[in-house]
Amino acid sequence: VARRARPPVVTLTTDFGLAGHHAGVLRGVILAACPGAQVADLTHGIPAGDVEAAAWALRWSWRHFPAGTVHCVVVDPGVGSPRRALAARAGGHAFVGPDNGVLSLALGDAGRLAGAVAIAPPPSPRISWTFHGRDLFAPAAARLAAGTPLARLGRRVTDWARLPHRPVRRDGPGALEGEIVAVDRWGNLAANITEEDLRTAGLGDGVEVRVGRRTILGLRRYYAEARPGEPVVLLNSDGHLEIAVNLGRADALLGARRGTAVRVSARPR
Amino acid sequence: VARRARPPVVTLTTDFGLAGHHAGVLRGVILAACPGAQVADLTHGIPAGDVEAAAWALRWSWRHFPAGTVHCVVVDPGVGSPRRALAARAGGHAFVGPDNGVLSLALGDAGRLAGAVAIAPPPSPRISWTFHGRDLFAPAAARLAAGTPLARLGRRVTDWARLPHRPVRRDGPGALEGEIVAVDRWGNLAANITEEDLRTAGLGDGVEVRVGRRTILGLRRYYAEARPGEPVVLLNSDGHLEIAVNLGRADALLGARRGTAVRVSARPR
Amino acid sequence: VARRARPPVVTLTTDFGLAGHHAGVLRGVILAACPGAQVADLTHGIPAGDVEAAAWALRWSWRHFPAGTVHCVVVDPGVGSPRRALAARAGGHAFVGPDNGVLSLALGDAGRLAGAVAIAPPPSPRISWTFHGRDLFAPAAARLAAGTPLARLGRRVTDWARLPHRPVRRDGPGALEGEIVAVDRWGNLAANITEEDLRTAGLGDGVEVRVGRRTILGLRRYYAEARPGEPVVLLNSDGHLEIAVNLGRADALLGARRGTAVRVSARPR
Repeated sequence: VARRARPPVVTLTTDFGLAGHHAGVLRGVILAACPGAQVADLTHGIPAGDVEAAAWALRWSWRHFPAGTVHCVVVDPGVGSPRRALAARAGGHAFVGPDNGVLSLALGDAGRLAGAVAIAPPPSPRISWTFHGRDLFAPAAARLAAGTPLARLGRRVTDWARLPHRPVRRDGPGALEGEIVAVDRWGNLAANITEEDLRTAGLGDGVEVRVGRRTILGLRRYYAEARPGEPVVLLNSDGHLEIAVNLGRADALLGARRGTAVRVSARPR
Repeated sequence: VARRARPPVVTLTTDFGLAGHHAGVLRGVILAACPGAQVADLTHGIPAGDVEAAAWALRWSWRHFPAGTVHCVVVDPGVGSPRRALAARAGGHAFVGPDNGVLSLALGDAGRLAGAVAIAPPPSPRISWTFHGRDLFAPAAARLAAGTPLARLGRRVTDWARLPHRPVRRDGPGALEGEIVAVDRWGNLAANITEEDLRTAGLGDGVEVRVGRRTILGLRRYYAEARPGEPVVLLNSDGHLEIAVNLGRADALLGARRGTAVRVSARPR
Repeated sequence: VARRARPPVVTLTTDFGLAGHHAGVLRGVILAACPGAQVADLTHGIPAGDVEAAAWALRWSWRHFPAGTVHCVVVDPGVGSPRRALAARAGGHAFVGPDNGVLSLALGDAGRLAGAVAIAPPPSPRISWTFHGRDLFAPAAARLAAGTPLARLGRRVTDWARLPHRPVRRDGPGALEGEIVAVDRWGNLAANITEEDLRTAGLGDGVEVRVGRRTILGLRRYYAEARPGEPVVLLNSDGHLEIAVNLGRADALLGARRGTAVRVSARPR
């Protein structure tokens, strides 16, 4: 079997949507600066300016791409303000984005941080005020994909922005208290509580989960184990506790959103 | 002229939409397991769980991709249940998806079936309960794209699920009765009746078509041959009889949907 | 550093949306006729039949792709009518689309036109009545990407369709009158007045801009320089005067749409 080339991979995560030409322009910038790169959309459907949603999407996705992938995130409500631009290497991948916390969950997850720099901005007027994706982030991602060493992109930093820490707390014996951290477009609620948190706390299938107005009994495996319109708790494919409603919206039924408290405890016998 | 490499092509057809990170994760899984593969979205806009819509989308598209393409379909309302996963080769292409009938129209169309297997699932806990696209179908598609023989993916099968047969019936001399099989997002109605069916029945432009509440006279070539708001019958680009409304929605105007009967006959003189 | 192959790049701009299989089929046609090509979506979100929106999207994007890119546009309300199909080379790029003006802004912008041809259509029945993207435009784009000389695609033409000229007029000393040429999905209004127009007219930050019902004072750099719900004028990332509303819709607030007059003058002291 002939050995195929391994072209560099660059992922894109933005809040641009796909209706306009802006996501397309990012693809062009990367292909122009790193010929042969494979540009893979992670998603362009992050809600406008929702840094936390983008941070979770990246955290739940980056490890499924090949080693060496460059992940470029442009969710940047501070564009035009003096916030820094960040590039980092961790876990064998590279990450580029505004220094607003959007990379921090992936970097925390990746471990083995190999370095981070504040990207030196191109001189004005070569950089626009409103499209740093095109003028700053995509060019930096393309340079990394083309093999430019991280240190050439800017000066080393260690103090980048992190999202607010949302710890899972032990709440008495065999009980955990966390919160909703992501709501997808079907209204499913992902908590910060993970499979490992449950295991550590000695909690299994026989749990009761309190979120918003409701208490839900038992940990299921898939949505259809609940009756239509009824809530169900399961471990989602990213390893997080998820509250869903079979054929319905959990956010609406439970009056829950990001930040809503979730309590998991052993079901009373 | 230098000979360019022919990287393997993998298409994706899902009901994930593009708002979340799930379609992006499939791209990553394929690029990780088959470096250099070209991942081409067929569509991620299949209505949730609509196996039949995905089956028609695949049937109407697969042959336009290069020989050797691997088509990976993840429309899988039975995820978590014991339904099998299928991989097959036919017509010089490969097909991967749940064994719920979603591949059956393409396989029937492709002819020359070169084999089919039930994909051996990865061991738990390496496979999630709710994201077999990531953990089962995309990895299998990537292995085929990378050159793994079909027989290495699982044990041979011959009895995969097929969608309900929707035959076109002769209804007296020079008349055909079929039904609507697909409704697109503009409300256009595609019938199971094809150009070849019409030719075989000796039906040409001078037909009358009865669907829902209306009878429509004549076969046109394009939408604008009808007045705005009026229904029009034509042969669509996939070779099927289509009922549309110029600048309107045929499903609404005619009260028709998938399964609605369509009768085509020679127009009385 | 090993020299990577520079695979040909083909961009797609259509009004197909992403819900159906049609954009996917274009990708397949290109990959089948030009193995190894990189297909990059510019956007499939052009409003149905909106030739002018597509023309601006292409104009604002083409130059960000690598030299040699083939840009294939399928926004073709005249499909089925005898309008011609066009292929052209200009500015080191190639352009393919219906001869309805959709390429004319990019061609005018690119300068150095190296030639244009009317694409010879494939014989019926190999070409459908309603999907020239698949049967005519994508095959022509793929041939160009694969290295076929332009002259082999059809006979030379010089008289292709151009969009109506929308000149910016001097309106007294230090004043410009133009119009809105594009409205994006957030309701932001792009005028035909460019950064260069302002400079030539001696207009700087101290301008007043009249559009629809409102007069807006001063040129800002980014949206957040206006209070929420208030209009703001800036130079957008494509170098055009843009009227936006911070956290709102400028089209609604100002009662403006494509064609609405915009007047820029020095702010009275």
